[in-house]
Amino acid sequence: MGAETDPVKAQLLELRASIDNIDAALVHMLAERFRCTKAVGQLKAVHNLPPADPERERQQIARLRRLAKDAQLDPDFAEKFLNFIIHEVIRHHEAIAEKHNGVPTGGEAQA
Amino acid sequence: MGAETDPVKAQLLELRASIDNIDAALVHMLAERFRCTKAVGQLKAVHNLPPADPERERQQIARLRRLAKDAQLDPDFAEKFLNFIIHEVIRHHEAIAEKHNGVPTGGEAQA
Repeated sequence: MGAETDPVKAQLLELRASIDNIDAALVHMLAERFRCTKAVGQLKAVHNLPPADPERERQQIARLRRLAKDAQLDPDFAEKFLNFIIHEVIRHHEAIAEKHNGVPTGGEAQA
Repeated sequence: MGAETDPVKAQLLELRASIDNIDAALVHMLAERFRCTKAVGQLKAVHNLPPADPERERQQIARLRRLAKDAQLDPDFAEKFLNFIIHEVIRHHEAIAEKHNGVPTGGEAQA
């Protein structure tokens, strides 16, 4: 391992400050996203709407991959990321549906 | 399944529009985060700095959990989310280190 010179350390701290700001933004965007999907879950539970909407999901994935590509982000990672979030939303929707109907829902977690 | 009345459909479309905006923001924040961690990876590879920094990682997790709690986001989910991203950054860092040294690095993917 080489010497950690001061300018290098300074550069590292600068980059970490940016990463910390971005992480705070990500957490708050995620919190807002879950507020939206919670509202979707409640709307669907109250009106007995089908939880899954494969066409909507297909469109979301295609759009996110396109946006990722434009932003030089790996589209496969963007899709994995969406699936990761959907998995969490499904958990939330099931909890909402169980409260309303006593029946767990399936998909359309991505809303 | 009940009838999908127009006002309900309109509410659903409103919520989906917000979700789509948030997803676009998330993708661009993630793209920017990977730009930062890529720079960290290059900095460390060039200066032969140790890839892992457990204290930094500990601080990041604690901070993100705190931010999540304030934003009414499940802190466990926030931590899972950070780990999900770190996993991807590790892949990137290994690729960078291999290019520079011919040796894959380990952690501090979260930078």
